[in-house]
Amino acid sequence: MDRRKFLKTAGAGAVAAGTLMAGAPAVHAQKKIRWKMVTTWPKNFPGLGTGANNLAKIIGTMSGGQLEVKVFGAGELVPPFESFDAVSQGTAEMGHGAAYYWKGKSEAAQFFAAVPFGLNAQEMSGWINYGGGQELWDEIYSNFNLKAFAAGNTGVQMGGWFNKEIKSANDYKGLKMRMPGLGGEVIKRAGATPVSLPGGEIFQALQSGAIDATEWVGPYNDLAFGFYKVAKYYYWPGWHEPGTVLECFVNKKAYEELPSDLREIVKQAMKAAYNDMFSEFTARNNGALSTLVKQHNVQLRRFSDDVLKKMGELSKSVVAEVAAKDPMSKKVFESFQSFREQSVSWGRIGEEGYSLARSLTFQG
Amino acid sequence: MDRRKFLKTAGAGAVAAGTLMAGAPAVHAQKKIRWKMVTTWPKNFPGLGTGANNLAKIIGTMSGGQLEVKVFGAGELVPPFESFDAVSQGTAEMGHGAAYYWKGKSEAAQFFAAVPFGLNAQEMSGWINYGGGQELWDEIYSNFNLKAFAAGNTGVQMGGWFNKEIKSANDYKGLKMRMPGLGGEVIKRAGATPVSLPGGEIFQALQSGAIDATEWVGPYNDLAFGFYKVAKYYYWPGWHEPGTVLECFVNKKAYEELPSDLREIVKQAMKAAYNDMFSEFTARNNGALSTLVKQHNVQLRRFSDDVLKKMGELSKSVVAEVAAKDPMSKKVFESFQSFREQSVSWGRIGEEGYSLARSLTFQG
Repeated sequence: MDRRKFLKTAGAGAVAAGTLMAGAPAVHAQKKIRWKMVTTWPKNFPGLGTGANNLAKIIGTMSGGQLEVKVFGAGELVPPFESFDAVSQGTAEMGHGAAYYWKGKSEAAQFFAAVPFGLNAQEMSGWINYGGGQELWDEIYSNFNLKAFAAGNTGVQMGGWFNKEIKSANDYKGLKMRMPGLGGEVIKRAGATPVSLPGGEIFQALQSGAIDATEWVGPYNDLAFGFYKVAKYYYWPGWHEPGTVLECFVNKKAYEELPSDLREIVKQAMKAAYNDMFSEFTARNNGALSTLVKQHNVQLRRFSDDVLKKMGELSKSVVAEVAAKDPMSKKVFESFQSFREQSVSWGRIGEEGYSLARSLTFQG
Repeated sequence: MDRRKFLKTAGAGAVAAGTLMAGAPAVHAQKKIRWKMVTTWPKNFPGLGTGANNLAKIIGTMSGGQLEVKVFGAGELVPPFESFDAVSQGTAEMGHGAAYYWKGKSEAAQFFAAVPFGLNAQEMSGWINYGGGQELWDEIYSNFNLKAFAAGNTGVQMGGWFNKEIKSANDYKGLKMRMPGLGGEVIKRAGATPVSLPGGEIFQALQSGAIDATEWVGPYNDLAFGFYKVAKYYYWPGWHEPGTVLECFVNKKAYEELPSDLREIVKQAMKAAYNDMFSEFTARNNGALSTLVKQHNVQLRRFSDDVLKKMGELSKSVVAEVAAKDPMSKKVFESFQSFREQSVSWGRIGEEGYSLARSLTFQG
């Protein structure tokens, strides 16, 4: 018997028992808590929308139905980019997105989604959970009556879809490209015009010529949006989003009012969902890439070292300027920077070192 | 008010209500479930033992105290390598270890811990959760009345501690080295004598000369055991354990008898713990490595390409022989092999591609 059934029965008992049960909290505790989760993704969108669904589902099941979370796709309850305000104000209790969407609220928020040439998925998780990142993130979001959680990761992304080859940094000049966050600022310095669009609006913009190029996520998600129909070249690696954290922000007051067990369920569900989403992307990107290349004749291209070096240098100044904007951004930047330094150092010996060693014997 | 308090009060109410509550499950559900977790690690050992503690703790908190898990260090309740049998037989309900310790029970189990030149931590999680790995693992462990879960990962390990330099594969000849699982078999083919020892017995064996060399985990764990006091050279990368999964096996009958919400809590706690442990190792390895090199004058060495190629070739035949031993091993090998192929292919463009691109601008 699960707790939901128990509570229902016990609740009925409590009512039947009348005055004998006076003061017992059965009815209160029995009352289901119903939350809304607004998302920035199209409803059920593979990986991201389904990641939000998964999060809601495991919270419901772990709580024996005591905390039910209903998920809304982009625009169903509020427009995607109004999710932050909606949860801050209590219109919904949870929101699912990526922190760089909120740079208008806080420049420092961007560090918690993706930084060009920054931390990969594994390192972001290390920084947030064991490197001081979570505490800084909480400090920022608490100003908006929100509690922030890392609730997923796409892994390293792809560099983007283009209809012309990018042979040098000069080829970014005059390009209208969908790219949010700090990456957008980097290509702006290279002469492009960055555009920020929610996922659901990109395909049409690219098809109509309103934009010339776009990035979105990686093979698994990009295949789902069908970008191969309107763009020819698919570039790697995704220097601008090396391991984007998907976040779930929770109305702080609602979170703090939860009984302690439900609060822990919400907290741990985020970590489980992070693990699930990251695993899903890792498992599915390769198959999708193969479909793109073999079935849809997508031309795969690696950015040249020259392009990567130039973007690397531009990203240094862009990120340094963000850090100079306000004391909070400076504080977050310094923590991030120091974690990157140690990550690059250990990564060379660790993950990168192994990956190159494996390639000596096993080729994909 | 948390659920624990509610249940206690409601239970008291139920008893007071007498016959009105007849048949109500309050007393049953109110009863705390107490589980034991035996581990193969020294009690509270950093990363591994503390990872087991963390898992127990979050299960307790999420369940509002309804499911309490008490953790036992290696040897406290049963000797470390008897954990599998103890949980299988119900002496304890949970066990925390690594699947290659149980190759005597099932050769195929080894694929779920670490395979030389196999999957890294991110890829193991992808294979287990979204690549068919979990289903195969369940098939093996259900023969022993166990349910298997991935409950942590060390990330890529280090290649080991030596008192002489390993300049060619020949230098493994005559070496007595602590190395469990398939890696042990690989160095055996290179002329070494592999020894399997629980963590807590390695230092003394190395100090006394009972073994000449050892591997354990990575900088964070190896520093804690003090191997730098008895060995001079620290080699990378850990080709033999590229992303070792720490497992938690649960007595299947006990697991299936849990109410559905507690069962889900156990299941999701494993994923949250996986994420936590992997994050912790990622965040802490670099600092520990720096301490080893700067404070303890450890000599860091990379295995040469020649050594890595030789070990790569030997590992191919070792793994192929395991696959030939029984039908289950063959089935697991084929699934693993196919996931490795796609992982190498996507990794080159994805994580490895990014890591190398970042190094053009950022050096650690």
